[in-house]
Amino acid sequence: MIETNKIEGVIVQQLKQIADDRGAVLHMLRGDSPLFEKFGEVYFSEINPSAIKAWKLHTKLTQNISVPVGKIRLVIYDNRPSSGTHGNIAEYKVGRHDNYCLIHIPPVLWYGFQSLDTQTSLIANCTNLAHDPSEAQSMPSNSDEIPYQWDSA
Amino acid sequence: MIETNKIEGVIVQQLKQIADDRGAVLHMLRGDSPLFEKFGEVYFSEINPSAIKAWKLHTKLTQNISVPVGKIRLVIYDNRPSSGTHGNIAEYKVGRHDNYCLIHIPPVLWYGFQSLDTQTSLIANCTNLAHDPSEAQSMPSNSDEIPYQWDSA
Repeated sequence: MIETNKIEGVIVQQLKQIADDRGAVLHMLRGDSPLFEKFGEVYFSEINPSAIKAWKLHTKLTQNISVPVGKIRLVIYDNRPSSGTHGNIAEYKVGRHDNYCLIHIPPVLWYGFQSLDTQTSLIANCTNLAHDPSEAQSMPSNSDEIPYQWDSA
Repeated sequence: MIETNKIEGVIVQQLKQIADDRGAVLHMLRGDSPLFEKFGEVYFSEINPSAIKAWKLHTKLTQNISVPVGKIRLVIYDNRPSSGTHGNIAEYKVGRHDNYCLIHIPPVLWYGFQSLDTQTSLIANCTNLAHDPSEAQSMPSNSDEIPYQWDSA
């Protein structure tokens, strides 16, 4: 099941968790998926309890993220002038076990993460370009330029 | 740093862990790495405390695994008739924080995993082919055909 969401180009796809007494197998992304474009890099980002990692934007890179450990809030802000959803903010609660999904995030969107768990959560990211600092931008999580207030609880 | 190991074709590469108070960033694999061939699939396998997942063999698929959460023992048995390391068994203790690495495992090798942690460990696997049961074989962890005794402790 693939569903489009309230920000143009952002796609949320539910992923399989295959239960096993020894530990589950968790799908993420296959090369024959319509969400796969090109392999740039796969890496992980931990989010410690109560931590916030925000805001970031990539001018070229497309992300495919999943949360195989813990649970996070992902917030995306659409400030693309020509977007049909310009000005929108979308919030996603993502992770185990009840919303294990892939979120496809095209470039030129501001995004950030917040822990929603008492353990360290793990975000996996499979991108279409390898890390390149020249195409990444950032702003502090309390920036006035983005109409969103992170819950500090 | 890339080091070859005592089984022909198996390569162990130390990976960067970039410390951050909010949660570390953990490298895994880039498309411009000499260990990257082709993108087949990325998925995860949990290993619960004291669990063993063994034995498996892929006839075509190459694996690139990392352990971003917890710690495991990986055992590889080389039964390839034409291999220069035919008959060898290799054991690797892999995971956070002291041996966070990528292990490149070519096809036609028997392998298995065992938890070495009190928490659930997470194995990430980035393969050159998407999952295809027709190229996978398995044997029970106590099979007499592999000269290795899993420690049940």
